[in-house]
Amino acid sequence: MKVTPWEVEGRIDYDKLIKEFGTKKIDDALRQRLERLAGESHVMLRRGFIFSHRDLDLVLDDYEKGEGFFLYTGRGPSGPMHIGHLLPLIFTKWLQDRFGVNLYIEITDDEKFLFKRELSWEDVSRYSVENALDIAAVGFDPNRTFIFRDSEYVGHCYPLLMKIAKKVTFSTAKAVFGFTNEANIGQIFYPAYQVVPTFFEKKRCLIPNAIDQDPYWRIQRDIAEGLGFKKTAAIHSKFIPPLQGTEGKMSSSIADTAIWLSDDEKTVSKKIMKYAFSGGQPTVEEHRRKGGNPDIDVPFQWLKLLFEPDDSKLKSIEDDYRSGRLLTGELKQLLIEKLNRFLTEHRERKEKVDIEKYTKTGRLAQKMWESYY
Amino acid sequence: MKVTPWEVEGRIDYDKLIKEFGTKKIDDALRQRLERLAGESHVMLRRGFIFSHRDLDLVLDDYEKGEGFFLYTGRGPSGPMHIGHLLPLIFTKWLQDRFGVNLYIEITDDEKFLFKRELSWEDVSRYSVENALDIAAVGFDPNRTFIFRDSEYVGHCYPLLMKIAKKVTFSTAKAVFGFTNEANIGQIFYPAYQVVPTFFEKKRCLIPNAIDQDPYWRIQRDIAEGLGFKKTAAIHSKFIPPLQGTEGKMSSSIADTAIWLSDDEKTVSKKIMKYAFSGGQPTVEEHRRKGGNPDIDVPFQWLKLLFEPDDSKLKSIEDDYRSGRLLTGELKQLLIEKLNRFLTEHRERKEKVDIEKYTKTGRLAQKMWESYY
Repeated sequence: MKVTPWEVEGRIDYDKLIKEFGTKKIDDALRQRLERLAGESHVMLRRGFIFSHRDLDLVLDDYEKGEGFFLYTGRGPSGPMHIGHLLPLIFTKWLQDRFGVNLYIEITDDEKFLFKRELSWEDVSRYSVENALDIAAVGFDPNRTFIFRDSEYVGHCYPLLMKIAKKVTFSTAKAVFGFTNEANIGQIFYPAYQVVPTFFEKKRCLIPNAIDQDPYWRIQRDIAEGLGFKKTAAIHSKFIPPLQGTEGKMSSSIADTAIWLSDDEKTVSKKIMKYAFSGGQPTVEEHRRKGGNPDIDVPFQWLKLLFEPDDSKLKSIEDDYRSGRLLTGELKQLLIEKLNRFLTEHRERKEKVDIEKYTKTGRLAQKMWESYY
Repeated sequence: MKVTPWEVEGRIDYDKLIKEFGTKKIDDALRQRLERLAGESHVMLRRGFIFSHRDLDLVLDDYEKGEGFFLYTGRGPSGPMHIGHLLPLIFTKWLQDRFGVNLYIEITDDEKFLFKRELSWEDVSRYSVENALDIAAVGFDPNRTFIFRDSEYVGHCYPLLMKIAKKVTFSTAKAVFGFTNEANIGQIFYPAYQVVPTFFEKKRCLIPNAIDQDPYWRIQRDIAEGLGFKKTAAIHSKFIPPLQGTEGKMSSSIADTAIWLSDDEKTVSKKIMKYAFSGGQPTVEEHRRKGGNPDIDVPFQWLKLLFEPDDSKLKSIEDDYRSGRLLTGELKQLLIEKLNRFLTEHRERKEKVDIEKYTKTGRLAQKMWESYY
């Protein structure tokens, strides 16, 4: 297992990650408290996709005291987006809707340019524009959400960026991120920018993101109070398993491991049928006799993570599959339908999205372009 | 002897510096060629204050071919400015006037904030504003000069900054600048920004500066062609000796080693009389008998560097001092008068300077604010 902000490999042991990263498991009590304050449950919470946190309890304390909090997450524009990229954003939207808070979404064009040798500035610019549309299509509150590119907002936050950079030594960056002497000087500097948005407000920041980004928040938590801000909180999601099995994560670099947001119905159908790792048996007869194993079955796992939010329906799918009543092809077909509906709706929203609201003219965006940090 | 962009200590051996830094001495032939193309000589050139270069010959080739060139220099706003800061700028103005070229002046607020532990962002901001006035008062062409702060222009050159940073490894930065693991990640990144202005035009850049800045240009010359630009040229000045003697350089951190641009007539007089290291003898009688030594005499050296541009007058001062006809106090008085006249004129120009021309509204400044790199 290898988990860094740039690489996720091997079979992920999430309990071990919690220990290694020094985060905390979201236990039943905390989950129930969050659901109570939110006024409802969320499928990703109750099914353990959102599994770890830092200081979520303090965020809820602040909320109860009326001090509020704000949300921050990001996207590295290294290519088109797939289903896996959208999941933490869907959960983020739920948090924004339920708690009525501001949300900052950083498009890290600089990061991807610096870390991916083969990407040109033109590449990351193109993906930045394209990805922002996909992100906005999730349906965030246009007056409480600011989507910005690092390269475009830097003129408004450079002094803050410098104040952060001044507090972080190469030793620290090396220990946290494993930089070697062959890292370029932009890569070494970049973590400072990922910390910037955690200081956009004096309130506590809550970051919903995949757990591989956690090292950045360790840096933030070391320096926040010295700069007059609160340590950021975070809430971590697991990785959505790639089509081919339950190791690593859905990867942007291998096209067929992922379902892309632009995949049409036929492509989705073909990919799921051809590549999705199955927990079923080699023949129908054997499957009817022995049953399938949903725990390692990727289509079932995807349904569980998001696409079948109805618990009783999911339970009967699981039972039917385990008993052999439901065949692999049938299970895959269930997912294909759900996925295609999801993607169609996503693309319809994307067509209609008023991106300027999020980047320039919405209430929060406007305020951000009038501010200097 | 220790010469880095941040420290200059000991007795400077300029021939050794040329060897260590791998630059070239400005020999008589090159100096005469420069003077011929400029249409006149300059005191700092003929008296060896401007002593070393990289590719100045290629700059003159380009000029003769009609391809032109542009000038770039900078200022780290770590405090008020003294006479020593102004000398390379005076020579830069001469170059601009004689060759009619564009000039970019970078105020490195980020650098000084990152490298000086005790400086706050408010400090460097205050000095940036104040220093820009002193720089503009040198009298550059307001339509061909752009004075900018790193923090203010960064939104216009961030992609270029990233392209530079991507090409420089920590190994290289470490080898060139001697960074340790305790350097902060902003310091490690900063050299990329000092390279940026060398790419503001496709023409060859010529940088007039004190030789301690040369390491930055080594980095630039390594990567320029790979990014589609020319290797920058440079023309190096010596350090103006501090009042107390001929070691090190006039230092901003020890107030009495320098004559500040704000020093009034009395202060100048007192400082020169009290602190200026003299090559004279302990008593008038001894001085009349043995004569003084102008080679180690700071007032004489200052007259030679700039303040007595008339060669024959300087020669008679030298002869008189060496022979004992001119006393230490009299020599100091000569410098005091020249210095005070210079400072009065400087402050008069500063009072009247239209700084907006250089930073916003002049022809070049306007063009720069419409450009993105």
